[in-house]
Amino acid sequence: MQTPTDAAADEISRNSRATQIVRIENLLYRVPLRQVLVDAGHGDHTHFELVISKVHCADGACGVGYTYTGGKGGTAIRALLRDEIAGLLHGANSADIAGLWKKMRQSLHYLGCGGVVGFAISAVDVALWDLHCRRLGQPLWRVAGGHANTVPCYRGLIDLGFSEEQLVEVVAAEIARGHTGIKLKVGRPDYQTDVRRVRRVRDVIGPAAVMMADANYSWDASTAIAFAKEVAGARLHWFEEPVDPHDFDSYAAIAQAVDIPLASGENLRTFAEFREAIRHARLGYLQPDASNLGGITGWLEVARHAALHGLKVASHGMHELHVSLMAAQPNASLLEVHSFPIDEYTHRPFEVANGIATAPEVPGTGVEFDFARLKPYLVHEG
Amino acid sequence: MQTPTDAAADEISRNSRATQIVRIENLLYRVPLRQVLVDAGHGDHTHFELVISKVHCADGACGVGYTYTGGKGGTAIRALLRDEIAGLLHGANSADIAGLWKKMRQSLHYLGCGGVVGFAISAVDVALWDLHCRRLGQPLWRVAGGHANTVPCYRGLIDLGFSEEQLVEVVAAEIARGHTGIKLKVGRPDYQTDVRRVRRVRDVIGPAAVMMADANYSWDASTAIAFAKEVAGARLHWFEEPVDPHDFDSYAAIAQAVDIPLASGENLRTFAEFREAIRHARLGYLQPDASNLGGITGWLEVARHAALHGLKVASHGMHELHVSLMAAQPNASLLEVHSFPIDEYTHRPFEVANGIATAPEVPGTGVEFDFARLKPYLVHEG
Ligand SMILES: [Mg+2]
Ligand SMILES: [Mg+2]
Repeated sequence: MQTPTDAAADEISRNSRATQIVRIENLLYRVPLRQVLVDAGHGDHTHFELVISKVHCADGACGVGYTYTGGKGGTAIRALLRDEIAGLLHGANSADIAGLWKKMRQSLHYLGCGGVVGFAISAVDVALWDLHCRRLGQPLWRVAGGHANTVPCYRGLIDLGFSEEQLVEVVAAEIARGHTGIKLKVGRPDYQTDVRRVRRVRDVIGPAAVMMADANYSWDASTAIAFAKEVAGARLHWFEEPVDPHDFDSYAAIAQAVDIPLASGENLRTFAEFREAIRHARLGYLQPDASNLGGITGWLEVARHAALHGLKVASHGMHELHVSLMAAQPNASLLEVHSFPIDEYTHRPFEVANGIATAPEVPGTGVEFDFARLKPYLVHEG
Repeated sequence: MQTPTDAAADEISRNSRATQIVRIENLLYRVPLRQVLVDAGHGDHTHFELVISKVHCADGACGVGYTYTGGKGGTAIRALLRDEIAGLLHGANSADIAGLWKKMRQSLHYLGCGGVVGFAISAVDVALWDLHCRRLGQPLWRVAGGHANTVPCYRGLIDLGFSEEQLVEVVAAEIARGHTGIKLKVGRPDYQTDVRRVRRVRDVIGPAAVMMADANYSWDASTAIAFAKEVAGARLHWFEEPVDPHDFDSYAAIAQAVDIPLASGENLRTFAEFREAIRHARLGYLQPDASNLGGITGWLEVARHAALHGLKVASHGMHELHVSLMAAQPNASLLEVHSFPIDEYTHRPFEVANGIATAPEVPGTGVEFDFARLKPYLVHEG
């Protein structure tokens, strides 16, 4: 005869059998950009890569996660997912997100805590969160914090290759599309050109709009300080990656010398790097990216740590996902609407109205890929 | 008519055509270990992976480099070499080692500066140094510093899975083989067992031998301090990776509390990480590994920075290569003779006499693989 306790144990065991991971599918896409996009640190971008992981469970449920790159490394990320991570997670309970995250980190620790390992873990972690939210019947913004379902945003341009006239045109078009904030690239050897472009864009967008500049870690501290002083009149909201993202002492020196808050995070890839940056770099805004930091689990860890230190969290890239994470946090600043248009390959292209973005309300992450539209760009599957 | 300047320019151009990279071959091997080797951080090792890169030049010269893993990630490293690095270096001048190192780092920056990228760059960088030394007709130890051609060494065991009796037997055999120093693994949840093993090994090797302990980052600071205090009588030469390698404040706290110098480095993967560790972690010994830090170029950068800060450099893994790098430095401490026997798959198995290792005298790195012996373990080539 079954006791009530036996019945409860049975139900737990039934559930965890149902949520067992039976298969992970990994797809690599190489998607061309409409035009070549240039920044000072990474040079030319002609494509972005998308690595999509589908985590299939015993009960037939499937969570979809992904990561992206600026065009390089996709086959290495996929190799880790296929040859190391899939076997590690086979048979595991998909509901144990934190446990699986730790398991992946520990197992792959010797391969480096950030880097390619971080991208691969991200794809799977996002898929596990998608499953989790679907099972709860809730949208990601509610499960990941629930503060709000909207967040102010800005348009992040990758415009170093644009002429000044092109830049002005693009900025005007983005404002017409509903943006109220613009980030432009700087970081030229000749920083005076950057100063002129910043001033020109401020004239175009008017005094009320938000504006940032991003040097993609291509300057030294003294050039960064000289630039920041000359653009003081343009009132930048933040100055992003002026120097090598790991040279925290230089960040602190720049923060000391100028009045614009500093932002960094797209090249900090572990919690430990963010923790040390908070201690030593005097950043004003942290910009974690769930696609390279270990997914939603990694992103939330940084966002919460930022809150504990009285700092604002921002985001980098994959706005179609970060919109939910950012909206959910009380300490969110502005969501980046990135120039890699991943959202155009989903069933819910991203929209912005008067500088505000709204998180999806469907259960799951709300990032539902249009696989038919992606098909021409498939490089590897399975 | 050709002027002397034209002739010189012609010769340079002829030379750089000759040294142009025309092809990079990448081979992945998965080599079984004789027995399962266990440590507290990485768990069981049943295999090691070897990724060998052959860099072929226009003049027919070929440099051979490599990296290794504890059994995971080889296919991802090979994917980076094949899909990103080979194309990047095609047609480049193989003699420009520093330039190519910078080019690889910059091009792959977004994929993370350490991690899988570091392993891949290492394989190619070692091959470029092999070519460079061959062209100079000199052994690596002369080209990489030239301080000496010998270096004291110790045997690094991976023995957490051995019974106490097995451990004592293995230690005795290593001493009989010519070793005068032994490093054993610790890091159990029950640290008293580790204390007993340390004392037992000290009894076996006698008071004159060098002994270290390595916790593979599995303790917290208070357990590490308690352990170190209890083994004070065993006179450890260093205490390796007591806690999370990136938790520099905890290292500093342990260094403050105990008298044993701390060692770390196998999990620090960029110059910036070593620089920050020197600033904040109060390490006594740095242990860079040329297989994961960007090769010989990356290793020398750390060794020289250590010298400038009055610190000793040690090594981790691949002793058949590090013997030349360590011997070459005036600030070298002790070379680790690692438990992954890569040297057994070369034409010059590693030898030690009375605790001293000797660097190869042949032009190049002196690591000449026995490809016939490796053949059964080939997983991918080309
Ligand atoms: Mg940026
Ligand atoms: Mg160690």
